[in-house]
Amino acid sequence: MSQIRYAFIVSDRTGITSESMGQALLNQFSHIEFRRSMHPFIDTVEKAEKMVAIINQAAEESAVRPLIFSSIVNDEVREVIHQSNGLHLDFFDAFIGILEEELQTEATNIVGNIHGITDEEKYHARMEAVNFSLTHDDGSTDKDMRKADVILVGVSRSGKTPTCLYLALQYGIRAANYPLTPDDLELGSSDLPRMLKPYKQKIFGLTIDPERLHHIREQRRPNSKYASIENCRSEVREAESLYRQHGIPFLSTTHKSVEELAANILLETGIKRRS
Amino acid sequence: MSQIRYAFIVSDRTGITSESMGQALLNQFSHIEFRRSMHPFIDTVEKAEKMVAIINQAAEESAVRPLIFSSIVNDEVREVIHQSNGLHLDFFDAFIGILEEELQTEATNIVGNIHGITDEEKYHARMEAVNFSLTHDDGSTDKDMRKADVILVGVSRSGKTPTCLYLALQYGIRAANYPLTPDDLELGSSDLPRMLKPYKQKIFGLTIDPERLHHIREQRRPNSKYASIENCRSEVREAESLYRQHGIPFLSTTHKSVEELAANILLETGIKRRS
Repeated sequence: MSQIRYAFIVSDRTGITSESMGQALLNQFSHIEFRRSMHPFIDTVEKAEKMVAIINQAAEESAVRPLIFSSIVNDEVREVIHQSNGLHLDFFDAFIGILEEELQTEATNIVGNIHGITDEEKYHARMEAVNFSLTHDDGSTDKDMRKADVILVGVSRSGKTPTCLYLALQYGIRAANYPLTPDDLELGSSDLPRMLKPYKQKIFGLTIDPERLHHIREQRRPNSKYASIENCRSEVREAESLYRQHGIPFLSTTHKSVEELAANILLETGIKRRS
Repeated sequence: MSQIRYAFIVSDRTGITSESMGQALLNQFSHIEFRRSMHPFIDTVEKAEKMVAIINQAAEESAVRPLIFSSIVNDEVREVIHQSNGLHLDFFDAFIGILEEELQTEATNIVGNIHGITDEEKYHARMEAVNFSLTHDDGSTDKDMRKADVILVGVSRSGKTPTCLYLALQYGIRAANYPLTPDDLELGSSDLPRMLKPYKQKIFGLTIDPERLHHIREQRRPNSKYASIENCRSEVREAESLYRQHGIPFLSTTHKSVEELAANILLETGIKRRS
């Protein structure tokens, strides 16, 4: 029998919560290799029974017990998964009893819609934010710019667009972005670009390590002046100087994911989320 | 003293995992109103002590204990939060011991980077997918279309763009989209649009309730033929007929969030995620 350690992530909804949970835990055992698989929408006893058959099959093939990470609201469905030959860690099992006791009331046991459309208005606001961010990508228009929650600025390829899209999709934030071009930077850092002037309070700067920027730009336009390390150094220096001069808060995207950038921007600006 | 029930979501990283967890649990008590707040990047003893002061202040103001949902890897930091006058539910506390026993090894206790850049290559693939999806939005080009993992099709305003962006940002999937125009649909459903023909196996259809579509389009172009209920009914009918005729799988976006649509599309197509 093999020593493969199976890890099943099982959910009655999209699996986003149980996946975060499973990943966060498995990452704490990074010296072990797991064979992970995702199983969303396991929301009936029948589907749970099929799931158990799959888990038991894996258990038979391996000398070690499969792990099961789940967040299943329905007691009956969860109970079926419990019968499998794996180690079953369920998120609701662990916490719901403690909360029921503390709150002196019973959980509703309604399958959680935390990644569904529970609130039409909030969902609509998120989708509007996505549209807004797409329309206001790359300084393409200043129409309705006053409706922006935040305007990310930075040199070309510093990570503005994905960060804006993440802010919009995840938090319903209307995030515009504006590229600092060599023309903008040649002003000698004394002046903000015309389009940005009326919205100074909404501006948040991105910066990036010049070496990294050079690497990224080389993939786009190899051997160009645009991608040259000298030009990258100069653009980044001018951009940072502009931020400092105008008291614009800024972050480096070099070692940060869009998730980390978004969380930091929210924390530093205090912008209110719409989701 | 007030009866306000405070709920603090505390994390040593972005807070994405602890927020999913807190929301999933609190949603099970939807009859109670909670005053929620997010506290990401609590990653030192000093920050944890400040956090405890905030929690204790809330505890003094309220007749009921604050709830604290956290996912904090560092034992020392977690221990500080434990000292507060709230009910502290920590995700790692609940599960890590059981896993250590099962796996016969100790957790690394390294602050989880599950929403950071742990794997440069995977992160790069996600960002490339975002670029791909932006470039291939709304049928704008068929260049490199063969590199698409999936091509979402649907009538105008059926939800293609946000779903593509979510697939790209969350799962690193290169998701193109193509709008079925009245011209495409007038072909009498007998033929696929020219741009799509070579990629039939990659096509996934979206549909939407005509009433809902009418409502969405009215906000864009009030009283237009485009938005009229008759036109919406006819376009949706033709689109669904096209899907059926060509054996294209499809889903309705009417009551589904982008998270639910993405999870369903992954499940139905079996596309492999890059993240």
